[in-house]
Amino acid sequence: MTDSAPSFEGVLDAARQIAPAAVRTPLIEHPALNERAGGRVLLKAETLQVAGAFKFRGAYNRISRLTEDEKARGVVAYSSGNHAQAVAAAARMMGTRALIVMPADSPKVKVEGVHAFGGEVRFYDRYTESREAIGEAVARERGSVLVRPFDDPFIIEGQGTTGLEIVDQAADLGAEPADQLLCGASGGGLIAGINLAMAARWPDTRVIGVEPEAYNDTQLSLAAGERVTYPPVAAPSICDALMTDRPGELTFPINRRLERVVTVSDDEVADAVAYAFRTLKLVVEPGGAVSLAALLAGKVEARGLTTAIVLSGGNIDPALFAQIIEGRFKGARP
Amino acid sequence: MTDSAPSFEGVLDAARQIAPAAVRTPLIEHPALNERAGGRVLLKAETLQVAGAFKFRGAYNRISRLTEDEKARGVVAYSSGNHAQAVAAAARMMGTRALIVMPADSPKVKVEGVHAFGGEVRFYDRYTESREAIGEAVARERGSVLVRPFDDPFIIEGQGTTGLEIVDQAADLGAEPADQLLCGASGGGLIAGINLAMAARWPDTRVIGVEPEAYNDTQLSLAAGERVTYPPVAAPSICDALMTDRPGELTFPINRRLERVVTVSDDEVADAVAYAFRTLKLVVEPGGAVSLAALLAGKVEARGLTTAIVLSGGNIDPALFAQIIEGRFKGARP
Repeated sequence: MTDSAPSFEGVLDAARQIAPAAVRTPLIEHPALNERAGGRVLLKAETLQVAGAFKFRGAYNRISRLTEDEKARGVVAYSSGNHAQAVAAAARMMGTRALIVMPADSPKVKVEGVHAFGGEVRFYDRYTESREAIGEAVARERGSVLVRPFDDPFIIEGQGTTGLEIVDQAADLGAEPADQLLCGASGGGLIAGINLAMAARWPDTRVIGVEPEAYNDTQLSLAAGERVTYPPVAAPSICDALMTDRPGELTFPINRRLERVVTVSDDEVADAVAYAFRTLKLVVEPGGAVSLAALLAGKVEARGLTTAIVLSGGNIDPALFAQIIEGRFKGARP
Repeated sequence: MTDSAPSFEGVLDAARQIAPAAVRTPLIEHPALNERAGGRVLLKAETLQVAGAFKFRGAYNRISRLTEDEKARGVVAYSSGNHAQAVAAAARMMGTRALIVMPADSPKVKVEGVHAFGGEVRFYDRYTESREAIGEAVARERGSVLVRPFDDPFIIEGQGTTGLEIVDQAADLGAEPADQLLCGASGGGLIAGINLAMAARWPDTRVIGVEPEAYNDTQLSLAAGERVTYPPVAAPSICDALMTDRPGELTFPINRRLERVVTVSDDEVADAVAYAFRTLKLVVEPGGAVSLAALLAGKVEARGLTTAIVLSGGNIDPALFAQIIEGRFKGARP
């Protein structure tokens, strides 16, 4: 149980809490990728998680702890899409309702995912409205618990179970500890949870954040020594899952531990999505492929090393996926 | 070591032989598929194998046993594409050359795969020429060992390691034994190898073969009580990996053990490929998706049962994959 700051004990507790419902996703090693990287690469396939992304870990860790009274009033969440589906899935499992505030330009597949899990959707404009303000207002109106996407200890600790599993599964592969671990950073919940696990279990492993070039708020914040908030940005990105304007309040202090943050362009991300299709036979969404993109584009040296990579989600619209694998992708549209 | 009939001991030996080179592919359980099936479904993801299909197991088991003298003379294989890539990959690892006789209409991705592994390709016409005759003639000319796609004990035993791993991994998931196991049948090497493993380890598990409607030679042969050879067929199928005209000489006697064979249409297969993309986040080629198709189309009852399914390969051309996931697939072209 965690009530205050996220902790490694909380991650261990989350692992017990989510075990009945979450998938222990495989840690995949592919000879062709090893050969290309010139080292060992361990892929944590969170694409195979419930609702297609790591987000279910945190959402279930939070929602499964609601009281009966809280469940009766339902939950509210705001999300770019993966947290949305995860909250809807966990809410359905726990017998409560979910209302999700989503950007109007969310991938269709993510909106449909929320509906498929019985969730209700309310849209907002990603570029002009504040999802936090809308989410909080709706939660107040309904008396519902707001399930935040990252600034909640239970969420961060739930995501941290990804890191625990990487450690255990790498041992099974005789690849422990990894020299470095690459993970995308948006609000920073996943990478913060992983940092908690790494600090305790693989303290010498370099944890490296990866962000889209146009949404490098964690990189800027680490350089500034404090959380930097972007002015409202209008740059479109293929990485819909990673378009945050600042690091989280709870996640940033933990993520000061990052060795560094590297950035990738949309073209590099598209190349990684195509590589995952062609060679790894995995469906990875752009925001879930940034770490692989960083490796393939040489942003991080992997030669002679063991590199763990989180493939954090696989929810991508068929039309975009088709464009990318057929080499027809010409950049994200605003 | 096996010299005569394929055996379970040979499968155990193959497991030791291929361990340094093959991927122990994950056995994946996905809550959404379980829910849809109304039971537990265990997916053996051979899509994640070296060269994207189970074929590497048998090819490596055979080629890694060549003498130095045999290696000096190279290997020859005929194949619809997956065996081709596997032989090329194994040959490269063992330091020998591979010449592959492939149908002229093989998916580009498979031809490119052979080239990427340094193999040489010679095309033939799938509908008018005998690949066996061409392969044997070329092997004779060059003094090369012919690595057959299924009628070879080492090949069958190598493929059988897939079954051994399913048994061990199902135990880890607390899902042992499965009530039934579905696997595609072409020449029948994979399913024969799996039958050897099942007879020894899960004797009560019903092993069910799955074939494309237009290439149901194993189904017809079981009904006839002997190997039936099709007249040369001209029916195109999306399942390029499963277009054989008769069961193998060594595989058929073993596959008499099958509980039954069910068939699937190209449309059912395309639906399964799309489902794997959308929900499972896995790239599966048509021939590799027939077992999943049989389950999703209700050809096999799965309610209340544990069903193991082999996703045998993931080598599909981007254009076809794009058509299928975007709902534009209108049937295979001759």
